[in-house]
Amino acid sequence: MSRAYTLQPDPHLDLVLERVVDVPRELVWTAWTTPEHICQWFCPRPWTVSDCVIDLRPGGVFSTTMCSPEGEQFPNVGCYLEVIPGERLIWTDMLLPGFRPADQGFMTGILTLESTPEGTKYTATALHRDVDARKQHEEMGFHAGWNAALDQLVELVKSF
Amino acid sequence: MSRAYTLQPDPHLDLVLERVVDVPRELVWTAWTTPEHICQWFCPRPWTVSDCVIDLRPGGVFSTTMCSPEGEQFPNVGCYLEVIPGERLIWTDMLLPGFRPADQGFMTGILTLESTPEGTKYTATALHRDVDARKQHEEMGFHAGWNAALDQLVELVKSF
Repeated sequence: MSRAYTLQPDPHLDLVLERVVDVPRELVWTAWTTPEHICQWFCPRPWTVSDCVIDLRPGGVFSTTMCSPEGEQFPNVGCYLEVIPGERLIWTDMLLPGFRPADQGFMTGILTLESTPEGTKYTATALHRDVDARKQHEEMGFHAGWNAALDQLVELVKSF
Repeated sequence: MSRAYTLQPDPHLDLVLERVVDVPRELVWTAWTTPEHICQWFCPRPWTVSDCVIDLRPGGVFSTTMCSPEGEQFPNVGCYLEVIPGERLIWTDMLLPGFRPADQGFMTGILTLESTPEGTKYTATALHRDVDARKQHEEMGFHAGWNAALDQLVELVKSF
């Protein structure tokens, strides 16, 4: 199957985190695609991920349950759209597993990894339907949250 | 990339058209994936398709503009999710090209083609988010409409 068509991010609609991290690309991929690892880094502490299910193929489930410090649970279910091992992962909560339309979808995520002399260029993009959804995501703390989660990922990967 | 995960249709949520048609599988595929052919068969007459754009890869556009006998235009834009030439085509209007979340998505479509001694087993499935969406689609005339369009496809393919 040919590589998926992806957009250039639109600064009015999308949010992007781009950083170079000093860990190997393959380990970043492993941290993103293994449920027990996701539980350790995906949510900025003191929030946690209490449950994660992954079926790593287009249409396969990507589900995480986020858990507040008070113990309230927030399940999020979506599916993968593209899986290129070590290179690119695309998922959305607009579609449930098997591509069934979801009731309350919000975003499509694109993770791109490239090897660099320093380690890995890590680019995570959130695509939204409109300006309001982007704004809401930004105000929910996209930049601080996704940066803190990436710090946790790097810390975890260095402990492997 | 591995083959996508697809569901067994759920009779409470989904609509299925299954027929054997006496034309070759490859030509059914061609009729489904060529804009000028789509314009000739995709909408039951006297409605027409006035415009069709196809970028045949995951994330690529699948757009059709349906046109009423009075000339009113109804654009529908979505993207492909899986493309296995001659075998299976999956698309949705829940996501725009490049997988951007859409504003008013409704369904995911799955076309499956199998060669049989008589020609082609043609299975077209519409996945919906809930019972109401399925009911609405059925009342819009899913069965009569998709059957009539398939008759037009067979007629067109026989004229090739």
